[in-house]
Amino acid sequence: MNNFTYQIPTEVYFGKGQIGHLAESILKFGRKVLLVYGGESIKRTGLYQTIRTIFEQNGIESFELAGVEPNPRIDTVRKGIQLCRQNDVDVVLAVGGGSTIDCSKVVSAGVKYNGDAWDLVKDGSLIKDTLPMIVILTIAATGSEMNRYAVISDMSTNDKMGTFSPLFYPKVSILDPEYTFTVPKNQTSSGTADIMSHIMERYFHNAKGTYIQDRLSESLLKTCIHYGPIAYNEPENYEARANLMWASSLAIDGITWRGNSVASSAHPMEHQLSAYHDITHGVGLAIIIPHWMKHILNDKTVGKFVDFGVNVWDIDPSLDSFEIASKAIEKSKEFFASLDLPATLREVGVTDKYLDVMAEKAAVGLENAFYPLTSKDVLAIYKESL
Amino acid sequence: MNNFTYQIPTEVYFGKGQIGHLAESILKFGRKVLLVYGGESIKRTGLYQTIRTIFEQNGIESFELAGVEPNPRIDTVRKGIQLCRQNDVDVVLAVGGGSTIDCSKVVSAGVKYNGDAWDLVKDGSLIKDTLPMIVILTIAATGSEMNRYAVISDMSTNDKMGTFSPLFYPKVSILDPEYTFTVPKNQTSSGTADIMSHIMERYFHNAKGTYIQDRLSESLLKTCIHYGPIAYNEPENYEARANLMWASSLAIDGITWRGNSVASSAHPMEHQLSAYHDITHGVGLAIIIPHWMKHILNDKTVGKFVDFGVNVWDIDPSLDSFEIASKAIEKSKEFFASLDLPATLREVGVTDKYLDVMAEKAAVGLENAFYPLTSKDVLAIYKESL
Repeated sequence: MNNFTYQIPTEVYFGKGQIGHLAESILKFGRKVLLVYGGESIKRTGLYQTIRTIFEQNGIESFELAGVEPNPRIDTVRKGIQLCRQNDVDVVLAVGGGSTIDCSKVVSAGVKYNGDAWDLVKDGSLIKDTLPMIVILTIAATGSEMNRYAVISDMSTNDKMGTFSPLFYPKVSILDPEYTFTVPKNQTSSGTADIMSHIMERYFHNAKGTYIQDRLSESLLKTCIHYGPIAYNEPENYEARANLMWASSLAIDGITWRGNSVASSAHPMEHQLSAYHDITHGVGLAIIIPHWMKHILNDKTVGKFVDFGVNVWDIDPSLDSFEIASKAIEKSKEFFASLDLPATLREVGVTDKYLDVMAEKAAVGLENAFYPLTSKDVLAIYKESL
Repeated sequence: MNNFTYQIPTEVYFGKGQIGHLAESILKFGRKVLLVYGGESIKRTGLYQTIRTIFEQNGIESFELAGVEPNPRIDTVRKGIQLCRQNDVDVVLAVGGGSTIDCSKVVSAGVKYNGDAWDLVKDGSLIKDTLPMIVILTIAATGSEMNRYAVISDMSTNDKMGTFSPLFYPKVSILDPEYTFTVPKNQTSSGTADIMSHIMERYFHNAKGTYIQDRLSESLLKTCIHYGPIAYNEPENYEARANLMWASSLAIDGITWRGNSVASSAHPMEHQLSAYHDITHGVGLAIIIPHWMKHILNDKTVGKFVDFGVNVWDIDPSLDSFEIASKAIEKSKEFFASLDLPATLREVGVTDKYLDVMAEKAAVGLENAFYPLTSKDVLAIYKESL
């Protein structure tokens, strides 16, 4: 087991009606709020009106950054920073999923930074102070509600980059599974794929003696496999939504990879797809992952695939190692297909036009992956995924 | 899944050589430290000298509360509070296991409380402020290094009571598995039993839709089952010590029971055994648990035992439910026996003298347990365990 540090400072209120803690959470930090959200869905569901009522009843003044994009843009971040500065905002409140939260994180840091916010995307260590941030989660996917990461895009240069800072942890996250009842079917699927990819990409690592992390990872994967289809078919099944929501939070910045840290593989490859084609993150991951797995399966890696097959997919351990591995990859693929996720990049509008440049950009850092990947490898995986 | 809150504010430094973070951690809060520890073992291992050297090199002034008992006494807590007040201490540093940490927690709260420290043991809500506390863990067992609980005894009245406060989280915990290489065999066993009991007692709960918590609990139990015997037989096996240490921290105040909270059953019963007979906590638990399980097995509870048997002990799921349950209980008993833990209360000096009074005291609150227990039930379990 590798050395690691661990701390989850975010105060999580999980369950029905936890929005009852919103006012007290905001008022700890001030009365002026920047309300950040994406599209109109929170107005349709009534959540927006609930929040406005809470604001009015508690003398909270708010300003709005609406229309955050699914792959949030640096321009939107800049707008948010300006709004905070103009109005002397005390707290940033993100209401939405990963995109809204990530945008809010960089807004909260950018307000305190004397320079352009893109600097902070390129180098998180420049972040020395942030406005306090509060989250109301409306989709289970990125885990941004309880982690230190943010991913921001600059579409003018086709750059989609991840940044991180220990100051990015939200102060408070309100996780009410009922807010995800209205998540559309395709987003339920891609969210589930995103959660699973956070676990799977780090489950394949080279550290030794990480029994505890490996078993915990398998538990979270089994949770997604069990409840993904239920949430997909019964959108208002509370237990399915609750289990997926808590899995999303635990999947990425806690118990699955502290002690076995490794660079993600599919995420960097997907980020390029989103940067050049603006596709849905979880969809790109679901397409890429089985091909990445096939590409890296060999004598050295097969042992990990056996664990994956036996402990996650309940494949008969008495079979031949490579048979178990192949079945496990096939089952992963079938699982994504059962959630009606696309299986090829062409289906989501990706052509071979940018494959070379995407492969070059994605490969930066992948020499540290579980199975080191060159731009040639990435190109091959892209082509197999087309 | 029940509603819950979750926050792990403790900064954990896990792994070899993490004591390198000790000085910076202390100096965040001040220069005057109360060093709390138990017996002479930290002097024998050299850890004490290492700490003193760090103090000298960093201009840290220290005062000592040595000799904290295995079931820490309120008198020792009072001594610690006096030392802090006399010397204007800034930080409490606990070096040891659960007893030392629990004692330090109540010292850190007592310094800021205008009254007798036993009040805080009886009612944690009286705790409004504490001195910052730092932990160097030397035994994997109670999880006190990353939780909000403390258990203190008053031997003059045979009271052993648990208290809790959100202010009890250590600010920093240094978890170096190498410090547990010298833990004696019997303490390795009883520590493992303690970790497992924290998980098992809450694994048996009545909440519905807690798939994620149940699978995570099973992962931690499997970790203890896998590595307990290895640590017992090879005390210097780093991976075994590391997995057990991290399991101890995750077992009690995090991921296993948020969403399915239930009153513990074996712990209250064991606390009375320790209060009247000063026995080792984990030993008492290992003796009690199989008898508690047998006592509560019936048509209503058997489903949980089936999960336990199949997912934790790998028992054939095609067997009859009660057969699986009985096998699971038997396997738990055999596992504790394999670690040379005593199987009867008589072996550790318990007689039938106080059984009635212990049963009366233990039953307070057990009406909220997974299977509600009266003092009559507790008495029966004590008698079966004799």
